[in-house]
Amino acid sequence: MSNTTNPTIGRMTPEQLAQACSDTMHAQDYAAQMLGISIDETVPARAVLSMKVRKDMTNGHSICHGGIIFALSDTAFAHACNNTNKNTVASGCNIEFLAPAHEGDMLTATAVERSRSGRTGVYDIEVTNQEGVLIALFRGKSYQIKGSLVAEGTQS
Amino acid sequence: MSNTTNPTIGRMTPEQLAQACSDTMHAQDYAAQMLGISIDETVPARAVLSMKVRKDMTNGHSICHGGIIFALSDTAFAHACNNTNKNTVASGCNIEFLAPAHEGDMLTATAVERSRSGRTGVYDIEVTNQEGVLIALFRGKSYQIKGSLVAEGTQS
Amino acid sequence: MSNTTNPTIGRMTPEQLAQACSDTMHAQDYAAQMLGISIDETVPARAVLSMKVRKDMTNGHSICHGGIIFALSDTAFAHACNNTNKNTVASGCNIEFLAPAHEGDMLTATAVERSRSGRTGVYDIEVTNQEGVLIALFRGKSYQIKGSLVAEGTQS
Amino acid sequence: MSNTTNPTIGRMTPEQLAQACSDTMHAQDYAAQMLGISIDETVPARAVLSMKVRKDMTNGHSICHGGIIFALSDTAFAHACNNTNKNTVASGCNIEFLAPAHEGDMLTATAVERSRSGRTGVYDIEVTNQEGVLIALFRGKSYQIKGSLVAEGTQS
Repeated sequence: MSNTTNPTIGRMTPEQLAQACSDTMHAQDYAAQMLGISIDETVPARAVLSMKVRKDMTNGHSICHGGIIFALSDTAFAHACNNTNKNTVASGCNIEFLAPAHEGDMLTATAVERSRSGRTGVYDIEVTNQEGVLIALFRGKSYQIKGSLVAEGTQS
Repeated sequence: MSNTTNPTIGRMTPEQLAQACSDTMHAQDYAAQMLGISIDETVPARAVLSMKVRKDMTNGHSICHGGIIFALSDTAFAHACNNTNKNTVASGCNIEFLAPAHEGDMLTATAVERSRSGRTGVYDIEVTNQEGVLIALFRGKSYQIKGSLVAEGTQS
Repeated sequence: MSNTTNPTIGRMTPEQLAQACSDTMHAQDYAAQMLGISIDETVPARAVLSMKVRKDMTNGHSICHGGIIFALSDTAFAHACNNTNKNTVASGCNIEFLAPAHEGDMLTATAVERSRSGRTGVYDIEVTNQEGVLIALFRGKSYQIKGSLVAEGTQS
Repeated sequence: MSNTTNPTIGRMTPEQLAQACSDTMHAQDYAAQMLGISIDETVPARAVLSMKVRKDMTNGHSICHGGIIFALSDTAFAHACNNTNKNTVASGCNIEFLAPAHEGDMLTATAVERSRSGRTGVYDIEVTNQEGVLIALFRGKSYQIKGSLVAEGTQS
């Protein structure tokens, strides 16, 4: 996942690098694309994503499937913990479901870094609907692996 | 989600009732259908589900999206906690990701009840791949709400 | 845990009621007393508690035992979810340990309500040391049971 | 925490090494001693500990403080993840409280390894009372740090 053709990456600001990381990730994140997730904001250690609940995201209780709410949260988590350009994966997560989401709802997941030290980090994600109702609280633990998303060139 | 046309439901064994509950749930679980999840086994307080990892389930690290693994686990959890015919939803879950899953992998989620008392319960779900490698451990807390999945007729 | 001798309880403000609830709880919370926990602030749906790490709170790695940090967090959680005078217990909690605490450290746990609806609630607790370093993040789920901590008199 | 005076450690079986690790840990685990925790069994990747609930372990609801049940669980977790002689700490834990424990109850915590790979592991701990009632389910994530508990001599 490197971009060796862009000689200007080394001059990126942290904000530009965050955007480049998120763009690179999202282009290859077929699951997020399949779910219609959009990246509304990505700045270092923070990301805001949104998704509209489709009928094929509802479950046998006729509400949005918890796994889909988790997937949105987890994707926001992934952007917040990868957008400083260090490959990082989820080691564990917990989610509390506070209110149901329904077909047609527009959900927004806001991810913020709470801690990052050594290889591990903790991120909090809140999911709200279009009326600001809190739908879920998600906490993710990250683990940094080898590699980076975009190649950072030498300063020139 | 009642079935008032079947006068024989009241004579079902717990095993038949579990199957009827899972059939009813799955028929309306558009998210599970969209993910290609199949219900391999459903008996009271236990369920085994499987899903093949498609390319559109992979993320920016080219492994199965954590949200999709969660969705499979959560669906297995839903069948295990609803197949005694009491409407039950997830209140919170935690998942530990132990090994990555890849495109083409066949994942199996086995859900078992660990505790059920009053309105709440705890269920453990294990996800393994086709080689028996443990991919994830999921623990879900359930909360029983009003209603039932299938109508249980009077004994006749 | 009622106080039927105080005819003025019905006139309490929410702040006074929170203080009365916390006083009543703490007087009977022998575990919190044994650990030297003090209640620094208690207002509706929020509580701040502190505890000094003693040698008999350290473990085999010569750092504060995780169970003791959990106990401080859990006690702060209990005050935040009980100080509106509805008996409430923890149904489940998760804690992330971010940095070690050592003998002599003064730990502060700040608990805030994130959600409360029906019988259940979610509370976030942060534990910091005397230098403001984040030691742990705790999230607790509460479940309201019958009864109250202090008797609320009739309005007069 | 090394033992350079014992030339025979290198000849220990895994079972003897587990016992030596637990003995070394427990001798320095002042918190576990303060709580009266005893190590009933310690074999590689598994440990069974017990603790009697004292009055000074009860809370404002007159049941065993959740933090004390957590501390027992966490200690069992520590023995199971350290008794192969690699210094390991808890990175995060979650606990579900299923039934209350009361003063005088004898609690047993059984910890088993579910996964260990690289620096991280997952352990499940069950807490039961003297009648076999399940009191709590605990899941801990471990993180291996540098060092060992006992010095393992050269084979001779």
